[in-house]
Amino acid sequence: MTDRPVPAPARPEALIARRRALLGPAYRLFYDRPVHIVRGEDVWLYGADGRRYLDAYNNVASVGHCHPRVVAAATRQMATLNTHTRYLDEAVLDYSERLLATYPEAFGHVMYTCTGSEAVDLALRIARYETGGTGLVITRNAYHGTTQATAGISPSLGANVPLGRDVWAVPAPDAYRNPGVDVGARLAEDVRAAFADMRRHGVRPAAFIADGIFSTDGTLAEPAGFLAPAREAVREAGALYVADEVQPGFGRLGEGFWGFSRHGIVPDMAVMGKPMGNGLPIAGVALRPEVAERFGRDIRYFNTFGANHVSIAAAGAVLDVIADQNLVANAAATGRLMRDGLRALMARVPAIGDVRGVGLFLGVELVTCRDSRAPDPALARRVVNALRDDGVLISASGPHDNVLKIRPPLTFSAGHAALFLEALERALADAHQEPA
Amino acid sequence: MTDRPVPAPARPEALIARRRALLGPAYRLFYDRPVHIVRGEDVWLYGADGRRYLDAYNNVASVGHCHPRVVAAATRQMATLNTHTRYLDEAVLDYSERLLATYPEAFGHVMYTCTGSEAVDLALRIARYETGGTGLVITRNAYHGTTQATAGISPSLGANVPLGRDVWAVPAPDAYRNPGVDVGARLAEDVRAAFADMRRHGVRPAAFIADGIFSTDGTLAEPAGFLAPAREAVREAGALYVADEVQPGFGRLGEGFWGFSRHGIVPDMAVMGKPMGNGLPIAGVALRPEVAERFGRDIRYFNTFGANHVSIAAAGAVLDVIADQNLVANAAATGRLMRDGLRALMARVPAIGDVRGVGLFLGVELVTCRDSRAPDPALARRVVNALRDDGVLISASGPHDNVLKIRPPLTFSAGHAALFLEALERALADAHQEPA
Repeated sequence: MTDRPVPAPARPEALIARRRALLGPAYRLFYDRPVHIVRGEDVWLYGADGRRYLDAYNNVASVGHCHPRVVAAATRQMATLNTHTRYLDEAVLDYSERLLATYPEAFGHVMYTCTGSEAVDLALRIARYETGGTGLVITRNAYHGTTQATAGISPSLGANVPLGRDVWAVPAPDAYRNPGVDVGARLAEDVRAAFADMRRHGVRPAAFIADGIFSTDGTLAEPAGFLAPAREAVREAGALYVADEVQPGFGRLGEGFWGFSRHGIVPDMAVMGKPMGNGLPIAGVALRPEVAERFGRDIRYFNTFGANHVSIAAAGAVLDVIADQNLVANAAATGRLMRDGLRALMARVPAIGDVRGVGLFLGVELVTCRDSRAPDPALARRVVNALRDDGVLISASGPHDNVLKIRPPLTFSAGHAALFLEALERALADAHQEPA
Repeated sequence: MTDRPVPAPARPEALIARRRALLGPAYRLFYDRPVHIVRGEDVWLYGADGRRYLDAYNNVASVGHCHPRVVAAATRQMATLNTHTRYLDEAVLDYSERLLATYPEAFGHVMYTCTGSEAVDLALRIARYETGGTGLVITRNAYHGTTQATAGISPSLGANVPLGRDVWAVPAPDAYRNPGVDVGARLAEDVRAAFADMRRHGVRPAAFIADGIFSTDGTLAEPAGFLAPAREAVREAGALYVADEVQPGFGRLGEGFWGFSRHGIVPDMAVMGKPMGNGLPIAGVALRPEVAERFGRDIRYFNTFGANHVSIAAAGAVLDVIADQNLVANAAATGRLMRDGLRALMARVPAIGDVRGVGLFLGVELVTCRDSRAPDPALARRVVNALRDDGVLISASGPHDNVLKIRPPLTFSAGHAALFLEALERALADAHQEPA
């Protein structure tokens, strides 16, 4: 890409030591042998080791790494103007109109932040101000962010991160581990009970929040529509329903633009993030105007970098690319191929207990035994690392860390899907031969 | 800049109405007649009205709007790779080394976020985890962010934003309104009393946090060193001292790189933000490694866009520009000219009660009467709007909204300072002739 001489890349061990010294112990790396990436293009990441890696994990670069249209739009804007929302500007309004057009008619406003954490945090501030309550209901292994308030509703961060005092957690709607159960009815019942218990403790309900694909709860997608009874239970409790669309949003599920769409519900607020600017920091909250009317009258909101001109330019280009490259349809089509391939693999590999997900958000649950459904996190770890060594990037998640998380860019083609499925079959075979 | 035909800009009234409809009531605009900016270059912002505005306010584009070196670095990186810190990367380590070299030796780690709010929020999480306490001491009109936890330590957001339950506020070290008082000793005494009162209520101390220029408290800078006794009081209380450098940091004060330097203290953590990437979202916490050792061992930290490759590239270019264009020295020199000019103006204009600040962070306090020191927020508002109409952008701040906040890009020259001072003198004359 440049004429300058390229220095030899540092050895991974040296980088790991420098990293520990400079960034401290809170920073974790992916993989037993961390990868050193130096370039990205569409679904490919290129390593300092001269190898290329098929990216089947990163949902931020959702329209593909370094998409030329996004890069061009952001570059052009960066050389022209990059300020904030306290001056008048047309671009942020044009973008807001386009964005709101992807939402149900009841949604009328959008507010901008830089990260999903900030957007969830803002949604909680609004919900608490509007309802006068503080109580929140979440699922048991949820992840919603890293600020104090959002880490407090993210049990998946581990036992050392305190949950908020006014937070009630309910079981996630897991159809695999609750065979024969109507998970939607069960979730609604649990949500109702949580809000009732909350009131019994003198805590007034504020909101229910859920990620519409239940990513850290193990990727729970079926049956579509299962969120409808819970939505009703939230309304009955006088609380607001916040759809966390940071992971499923922007067409990844291949069925509509938002994770809640396939459940046939209309939330009170929806929180967006990761893929919104294809890597440039932009996130936000879309909402029914009436739920933020008091908040907006009484409280001013300003986020210095939120909706800055460059992020908005990138976000606009992302919407263009999704539309022009037909990426929602592609997520559906490639997702179907992937899911069919994974199900075929499941027929041959007993360690695969379940194949779940929709569009390009898929989960493969690994178990030591199909009958007991006992989770096999050790196998998941070996598979993830074997894939990495074979040049394919994914991760594992879920309450037991045994669910392979497959979440490639939306530009993943049938060819990429085939490469991925072959590699996964090899990795499962290799991982089984290794000692546990 | 382009060959495409430029559409006629929308009328401000139309934009304001669309804004209200799309972004909702929480969004506020600057100025009675909001400005519509379409291009930026160095210290100049260009309006859709065809006028140019001298930017004497925006501290984000600290090395000047659209600085070509920052734009080039970010653009190059954006076309190459933009991912996250879970892969190995050299650039983030090189930048971290350079950044930490600007701090006292005791600082060893840096952790990255996207916004100052997130960075303060993370510092609070760390302080609370390390100390086992929850209690925070702040100043009475502080601003530290917009997340729930940081809005809860930001009384300047107004009475409708609840302060945190475990937050104690002390008077800011205001030498103007406490003539003859040793504001440093007074602050230390107040901090000591706040921590004692906190313990009396069964709340264990976690941290003291202050913005080293006390921006929303009215720009309080003199005498340098006044923070030293408070730093000692925080240590005695077993709490951590968090320096909020989002506003004074990166050389703006012209005396060292950080606001705390001129007070001769070494905090436990320092929080950075706004100017760090000259407009691209990047922020962070620099700290003594020992204060995050437990946190880092027990809790993983990951911020999806924090220290992404593009933001790091921009941040590196910002450090280059500050060094190569000698901007800290320029902040000192132009700041001195500005302050001298403002003091000369004060000799002629009785409404100026005080001129404060250091480097390119200046405050001009407007009063109805010098003897009573009664604040004149109405005059401040008229002056800010008169300047805007005359093509110069500033704002007003402070507990009484009567302190003109002057905070131009660090590239402000002697010529720009002269333009500014002439315009301010005109604005003060005009504003005095208008009805209150």
